[in-house]
Amino acid sequence: MAYQLYYWPGIQGRGEFVRLALEAAGASYVDVARGDEQNGQGVAALLEFMQKPGLAQPPFAPPFLVDGKVVVAQTAAILLYLGPRLGLVSRKETRRLWTHQLQLTIADVVAEVHDSHHPVATSLYYADQKPEAARRAKDFCQNRLPKYLAWFENVLLRNPKGSTHLVGRRLSYADLSLFQLVDGLLYAFPKNMRRALKKAPHVATLHDAVAQQKRIAPYLQSERRIAFNEDGIFRHYPELDT
Amino acid sequence: MAYQLYYWPGIQGRGEFVRLALEAAGASYVDVARGDEQNGQGVAALLEFMQKPGLAQPPFAPPFLVDGKVVVAQTAAILLYLGPRLGLVSRKETRRLWTHQLQLTIADVVAEVHDSHHPVATSLYYADQKPEAARRAKDFCQNRLPKYLAWFENVLLRNPKGSTHLVGRRLSYADLSLFQLVDGLLYAFPKNMRRALKKAPHVATLHDAVAQQKRIAPYLQSERRIAFNEDGIFRHYPELDT
Repeated sequence: MAYQLYYWPGIQGRGEFVRLALEAAGASYVDVARGDEQNGQGVAALLEFMQKPGLAQPPFAPPFLVDGKVVVAQTAAILLYLGPRLGLVSRKETRRLWTHQLQLTIADVVAEVHDSHHPVATSLYYADQKPEAARRAKDFCQNRLPKYLAWFENVLLRNPKGSTHLVGRRLSYADLSLFQLVDGLLYAFPKNMRRALKKAPHVATLHDAVAQQKRIAPYLQSERRIAFNEDGIFRHYPELDT
Repeated sequence: MAYQLYYWPGIQGRGEFVRLALEAAGASYVDVARGDEQNGQGVAALLEFMQKPGLAQPPFAPPFLVDGKVVVAQTAAILLYLGPRLGLVSRKETRRLWTHQLQLTIADVVAEVHDSHHPVATSLYYADQKPEAARRAKDFCQNRLPKYLAWFENVLLRNPKGSTHLVGRRLSYADLSLFQLVDGLLYAFPKNMRRALKKAPHVATLHDAVAQQKRIAPYLQSERRIAFNEDGIFRHYPELDT
């Protein structure tokens, strides 16, 4: 049976990390909230699922994945679950753990990127926190971004199986997620990111290689790939990319 | 061989979630950075380990755990690794995944608590971001804290095995982590947290029960439990707890 992915329509957001794994593996899935309400899909179906009073393991927030009786929320946990099923992680426990550790670090960066435009409150608009965002984005671009990129570059350089993948010699969900992180940062902070990538050439190469992967390349051209926009996590506000 | 835990001495921080699991299980461990430099321990040993050029899987940041040849960083990944080894998680995959999902949500709250006093930059002092912290902490206490607590209360209420544990009928590392989260919030935001806990009585009961657990109770009285302070994640600034 097809996997059911539940995530807000209209943005890539955290759901995109799951989509990329499903797409790269050629898995069959339904992107429920982007479907038609008349077919029992759409945002109504997402909200209804989350609010089921009988749900023993209620998701705190989208994205969540439904696979038969299994319901998993939290992006990294979804990928932990899907990884072995989609052939996107090693069979060895230590490598699986390392892949997951990389994913958790990517999740940390994603949260920091979100807060670069929303440092005060998710419940407020960007326009209501512009001075704070300017300070936070400056620190992110000057200190955090180079530090994270240097670490991922180092991980690639130290991979005993070669520097084209983060773990082992095959594509893992962590590679896909690093692609998405880099892609989002190139959209949000083009000036700072292009500058920073010069010091992380293997990260840049991995990004470009994933974009060319046999199933990812057509996906990125398809309508299933939502364009980056200013409702998502990666937002381009030129005043924050100085 | 004893586990080696590496974390900054002087604060509970994220290392405390790992310590609580090790302590509750009565596991043998060395808290390396709190040891004596003359014995090859202390912060110097932590930094030296992280900076080893030959380390194939370098931690991005403490805490990290060393178990023989295995090196694991990221608090949630450490607990994913330790859980089965310490008997602090179910043997069933779906329950393990659910426990991990709870842990990841606790990690999200912890990051928000940190940012309530550091909304602009980790690299700056609190004194350099007080107006921003005031706005962020207000939003955290008014919106985020009640939302998270309501979710954990709901998880306890819906546990088919009873509302004294988050997962199943036995203590898991997620229970220990929820204890720590509540304990930290009671320190940081006593007014807001006491008010919020009135609407989450099962969360309050779980907190009190974990504090009485046979190995946790003596641990909390021991010198191994570092006191909360204004260098850690949970900081008490009365002006933020209005």
